[in-house]
Amino acid sequence: MTIQTPPFQKILIANRGEIAVRIIRACKELGIRTVAIFSTSDRNALHVQMADEAVCVGPPETNSSYRNIPNIISAAEVTQSEAIHPGYGFLSENAHFAEICHSAGVVFIGPSPESISLMGDKARAKALMRETGVPVVPGSIGAVASEDEGMEIADEIGFPLIIKASAGGGGRGMRIVHAKDGFSNAFQSAQTEAYQAFGSRDVYIEKYFIGPHHVEIQILSDHDGNVIAMGERDCSVQRRHQKLLEETPSPLLTPSVRSKMSEIAIRAAKACGYVNAGTIEFLVDDKRNFYFIEMNTRIQVEHPITEQAFNYDLVKAQILIAAGRSIEDVPKSIGHTIECRINAEDPWTFTPSPGTITRMIQPGGPGVRIDSWVTTGSVISPHYDSLLSKVIVTGRNRDEAIARMKRALSEYLVEGIKTTIPLHLTILDDPDFIKGKYDTGFIEKVMAKREKRLLLETIQSPVQE
Amino acid sequence: MTIQTPPFQKILIANRGEIAVRIIRACKELGIRTVAIFSTSDRNALHVQMADEAVCVGPPETNSSYRNIPNIISAAEVTQSEAIHPGYGFLSENAHFAEICHSAGVVFIGPSPESISLMGDKARAKALMRETGVPVVPGSIGAVASEDEGMEIADEIGFPLIIKASAGGGGRGMRIVHAKDGFSNAFQSAQTEAYQAFGSRDVYIEKYFIGPHHVEIQILSDHDGNVIAMGERDCSVQRRHQKLLEETPSPLLTPSVRSKMSEIAIRAAKACGYVNAGTIEFLVDDKRNFYFIEMNTRIQVEHPITEQAFNYDLVKAQILIAAGRSIEDVPKSIGHTIECRINAEDPWTFTPSPGTITRMIQPGGPGVRIDSWVTTGSVISPHYDSLLSKVIVTGRNRDEAIARMKRALSEYLVEGIKTTIPLHLTILDDPDFIKGKYDTGFIEKVMAKREKRLLLETIQSPVQE
Repeated sequence: MTIQTPPFQKILIANRGEIAVRIIRACKELGIRTVAIFSTSDRNALHVQMADEAVCVGPPETNSSYRNIPNIISAAEVTQSEAIHPGYGFLSENAHFAEICHSAGVVFIGPSPESISLMGDKARAKALMRETGVPVVPGSIGAVASEDEGMEIADEIGFPLIIKASAGGGGRGMRIVHAKDGFSNAFQSAQTEAYQAFGSRDVYIEKYFIGPHHVEIQILSDHDGNVIAMGERDCSVQRRHQKLLEETPSPLLTPSVRSKMSEIAIRAAKACGYVNAGTIEFLVDDKRNFYFIEMNTRIQVEHPITEQAFNYDLVKAQILIAAGRSIEDVPKSIGHTIECRINAEDPWTFTPSPGTITRMIQPGGPGVRIDSWVTTGSVISPHYDSLLSKVIVTGRNRDEAIARMKRALSEYLVEGIKTTIPLHLTILDDPDFIKGKYDTGFIEKVMAKREKRLLLETIQSPVQE
Repeated sequence: MTIQTPPFQKILIANRGEIAVRIIRACKELGIRTVAIFSTSDRNALHVQMADEAVCVGPPETNSSYRNIPNIISAAEVTQSEAIHPGYGFLSENAHFAEICHSAGVVFIGPSPESISLMGDKARAKALMRETGVPVVPGSIGAVASEDEGMEIADEIGFPLIIKASAGGGGRGMRIVHAKDGFSNAFQSAQTEAYQAFGSRDVYIEKYFIGPHHVEIQILSDHDGNVIAMGERDCSVQRRHQKLLEETPSPLLTPSVRSKMSEIAIRAAKACGYVNAGTIEFLVDDKRNFYFIEMNTRIQVEHPITEQAFNYDLVKAQILIAAGRSIEDVPKSIGHTIECRINAEDPWTFTPSPGTITRMIQPGGPGVRIDSWVTTGSVISPHYDSLLSKVIVTGRNRDEAIARMKRALSEYLVEGIKTTIPLHLTILDDPDFIKGKYDTGFIEKVMAKREKRLLLETIQSPVQE
């Protein structure tokens, strides 16, 4: 893509944390001025320091600040920002916000409100994919009208199955049912929780796979109808549907499955008239059958592994596409890349660990990229997610990438709060992980092994006199 | 190269600063234990903290510590180190040290003492290259016996010419002569300075090029006779023969010149029976004629640009080759890479700026690698070179790499001492640099332009009342 003249003069970044820093970096490289927004508790955050201008949009509660549409639109207008980059989370998949940006004459850096709202309705998205010939997980077509209809579908697809909120995400309104007699209770409680969390009782039913892989395909498409796929990301290392570690290529896929998935992902993106960066998430079973789960109509947290594996800047591409530029080159993969998410959490209980970072030394050296928003002295607020930084390593092959990640994490010094670094080091030493034999049930096994080990240590340790 | 089993159990790193940290990183990724050495003033340095063991080898003066062969060999013996990595500088090109390592039964990670001593004698090296059909700069064959012989050669090759110490380096014993009448004085003073600096009066004479490029080829060769070239590094941005910024590919070379230079570099390495990583330095004139200058028989400061451009770890390769492993794959270049050396110096006078770093924030994000040995609180001693860190960026092309470097340097916060960051930002904004039109005279022009600008500002600024 040609980047001779800046695609925009000024962009407002409607986010915080590492992704706000990431977007400011892309803007700087493109010669675009940046406007940060911040809540009162983020006054001294790195994204505020790095941006050319910054506007306070409200108190810490996200609904009053980072999700406060009127305040954010005002900030864009006051600062004469031409475009808004929403990052991930907050307003990034809010079709209403995208629409308001358009009416205010501000470019929303992302797909059209129509694409967002279509893909945001998980049941409608699934129905469209089915029509388009994209393999979807066997289950209900759209929302299930009643418990009786649900039971019929259950009989058809068999157990285990999963009930999900149509408007949902993040595990809320979600129930796994292992046998017929648990269905009725699970259906009703899923409906109730869906209503509480998303304001809609609509739920749908899917076949539930035990120990599948979660593999997603990065796509990029422009206003001229070019759609490209940029390989996959294996995101199966999760705890409670929260991704912890991602890698590309996936140790599970074969070249032919990869190319079939890429082709299907491109077809899926075309089916919803998608423009900009997006991710098609698939569930892959142990026989490498793959099924569409959902499309994320925004940049993903784990996008850097694709960037480093392809030497390609996805956030710049988002901005250039939003400005009407075309995708000119199709990059090729050059190595194996892994990302570890470093969270301010107890590594074994995942309890948030807010506080002040009293000392920090970041890793560096060959093949290491750090995306972070914290430094020595940073205060981690309990108001927001616990992601401190992402360590991304690239090697010639998977073995080198694993060795490099272990080396990098062993250099990472964070004092004053707890982080997930010890958990990542345990994962990287796990014999199954080293062999590439893991699925979405992997972390539970890692935790169980650890507890067994600790128990054995307690039993075997000599009695203190 | 296969890295299933560690090639060595333990390596001693006979260096300090960023290269010691760099080598420890390679060892950790290979599963090798490390021994740091340190002088009394480096007790708290990062390389000491990162190594598994550390041995004090003497007081700050380098001859008493980092160049103290008996103490270093003792440290290797006491710690049962199987090999020594010399880094660059200090003992890295000392054939005597390599020999003593061999007699002590410790592997020297580098070429044979014979290769080091052959290539270390600049006149002998040049003579060998001439025999091998490697183009060399027109000039004397070997050392010049007398001033009269020197004058004869001068008549033959013409002015300007340069007189250099045979045992030399770093600009000492070096004289540029522009016309016949300055020859006698220059010859005598070069001899005297050569004697004072290197203990030998031997000097040689070469044609002097005004505004050439300094381009070097990275080679790698193993004990099985495989020799590969890994592209070039353009190191023309220098001040007083000290490199400041390097990039690959060179904006000057064409694909056919690049492949000719690579072929010649491989021939040169084979001619001296070279094994391990080495660099063949060439002088390239504006018509892209190239001439051998010298071979550096060690890892270069600027090696990371080759590593990032080829996704290939050269320091690991050095260690594996020293352990007898073969080079298995020939990597391909994947992008454009630039390195800026961040020195603790006044950016405009190059006066060293020792002291304590009171606060530091390092750059990060896409395509950015940092090789550093300092953090907040580090003390920069006046005893050693002023290199604090190297910022290495990779982009899809040169424009992206330049934009990325500007972005990265603008994020780099170092308080308490002066650094060369402002000079690098000036270079990156220079219209000639942006066009790729620069040679070894470039920095002088940048400095002259700056002085003119400052002078104009002084003249034009209104008189204060």
